[in-house]
Amino acid sequence: MDMRPIGVFDSGLGGLTAVQVLRRILPEESLVYFGDTARVPYGGRSRETLLKYARQDLAFLRSQDLKAVLIACGTVSTTSLGALQAENDLPIVGVVEPTCQRAAEVTRNRRVGLIATLASVRSGAYEAALHRLDPAVEVLCKPCPLFVPLVENGRFRRGDVVIETVAREYLTPLLAQGIDTLILGCTHYPLLEELIADICGPGVTLVSASEESAFAFKRLLNAQGLRAPEGRQGDASFFVSDQAEDFKRIASIFLQEDLQHVAGRVDIDGY
Amino acid sequence: MDMRPIGVFDSGLGGLTAVQVLRRILPEESLVYFGDTARVPYGGRSRETLLKYARQDLAFLRSQDLKAVLIACGTVSTTSLGALQAENDLPIVGVVEPTCQRAAEVTRNRRVGLIATLASVRSGAYEAALHRLDPAVEVLCKPCPLFVPLVENGRFRRGDVVIETVAREYLTPLLAQGIDTLILGCTHYPLLEELIADICGPGVTLVSASEESAFAFKRLLNAQGLRAPEGRQGDASFFVSDQAEDFKRIASIFLQEDLQHVAGRVDIDGY
Repeated sequence: MDMRPIGVFDSGLGGLTAVQVLRRILPEESLVYFGDTARVPYGGRSRETLLKYARQDLAFLRSQDLKAVLIACGTVSTTSLGALQAENDLPIVGVVEPTCQRAAEVTRNRRVGLIATLASVRSGAYEAALHRLDPAVEVLCKPCPLFVPLVENGRFRRGDVVIETVAREYLTPLLAQGIDTLILGCTHYPLLEELIADICGPGVTLVSASEESAFAFKRLLNAQGLRAPEGRQGDASFFVSDQAEDFKRIASIFLQEDLQHVAGRVDIDGY
Repeated sequence: MDMRPIGVFDSGLGGLTAVQVLRRILPEESLVYFGDTARVPYGGRSRETLLKYARQDLAFLRSQDLKAVLIACGTVSTTSLGALQAENDLPIVGVVEPTCQRAAEVTRNRRVGLIATLASVRSGAYEAALHRLDPAVEVLCKPCPLFVPLVENGRFRRGDVVIETVAREYLTPLLAQGIDTLILGCTHYPLLEELIADICGPGVTLVSASEESAFAFKRLLNAQGLRAPEGRQGDASFFVSDQAEDFKRIASIFLQEDLQHVAGRVDIDGY
């Protein structure tokens, strides 16, 4: 049993989709979230820059005395997880391994699609993880650089010609190649899940990195005896690196609840 | 006469649209460009963060022994120009004043539209500048947060339903309010000029911040006797803060020429 909070971080507020799952499946855990809103988006940046940013993000979270950390950012998970795990003495979970595990389980024809940011696709981390699990799986990748800005501007609903056109362009080549499973490899994408499901049809199973990483995080807490006592209600604190003004409105979209929290401001360059 | 190079900086590569104009109207000047590609986009960030970034960008440029600097970034010009001018002993030109001057000259009905990033619109700098020039001008503003990511993903051409839908949504309210002049207040927007002109029709004059600021910069060099001797061909150096791999391809779009230059990499946090 361990009463210390869990930590979650992301390049921005997309990681709150994983927080939403965590609060549902681990209601007794207290949680500290950091979103690097001053430096979002991470998706197009170099490995070197990403590792530097990830180290600072984690250093801030570690100043809060946490028991374990979930990297709710596909880009950081694909580029920097190994280095962060090697440098830190607390359990750190990324989104890649658990998501690939699930994808390898659900695929029948072993043709798995991956949509993610450019940096995540370039890293090759999802392919490598899937091939470790099943060398016969074929991974078909499509970077989707416009999904994050479109979602952040509220364009994620069915019937919006802009997001529908962009999504169809991104997904059509994957569908033409006969995938039966599609990894949503960025924590912004759960907001697009209905739209993507419409385009892909019932023959394709969607696997969400936000959901699978939250499930994996729960398994880790169980396995290491780190769960908080049942019956209590954990609290949540939110921190961002840029202006916190719009936080409540945008966070409420990702969390799918009416958030009453104010976000603290962190000077992340100081970490 | 002054042989030292001129400096230009922007949050990313959009400022190269101003460089394109500068190379046309000041071919004898050597030029150093810095694009803060590791921290782009600036448009949604706080004033405090923007001033910090702008100081670092200028500090890097000043390490190159320049005679004058053009801030080819609407967001920095609207939020940080005054502070940078007060702190530095070389001439610095932003995009706001010259663009507003031109808009005040060309408007007949004194209803001027402004499209720009969220930070630029929030700053109120364009309105303030226009009202100093003509208190009777009415300024109608529309932040266009999706234009930068769409342009950077190559979606700026006529006939693309995505950019056309987004542009129509942004521009229709301004047109409904009877503007006869539209300020393109972000250096990415010259790539959208044809599309915007189609939507606005012949009754609206477009005023480009990239073009007007380059013209103002030339006037300043003339007025202060800072021009390089005629007849020579100035060279250009390019620096970015993140990976330089895609630089040639993206820069060629903004410069509208086949660029042969390689970009240098700058660790901007060190400035």
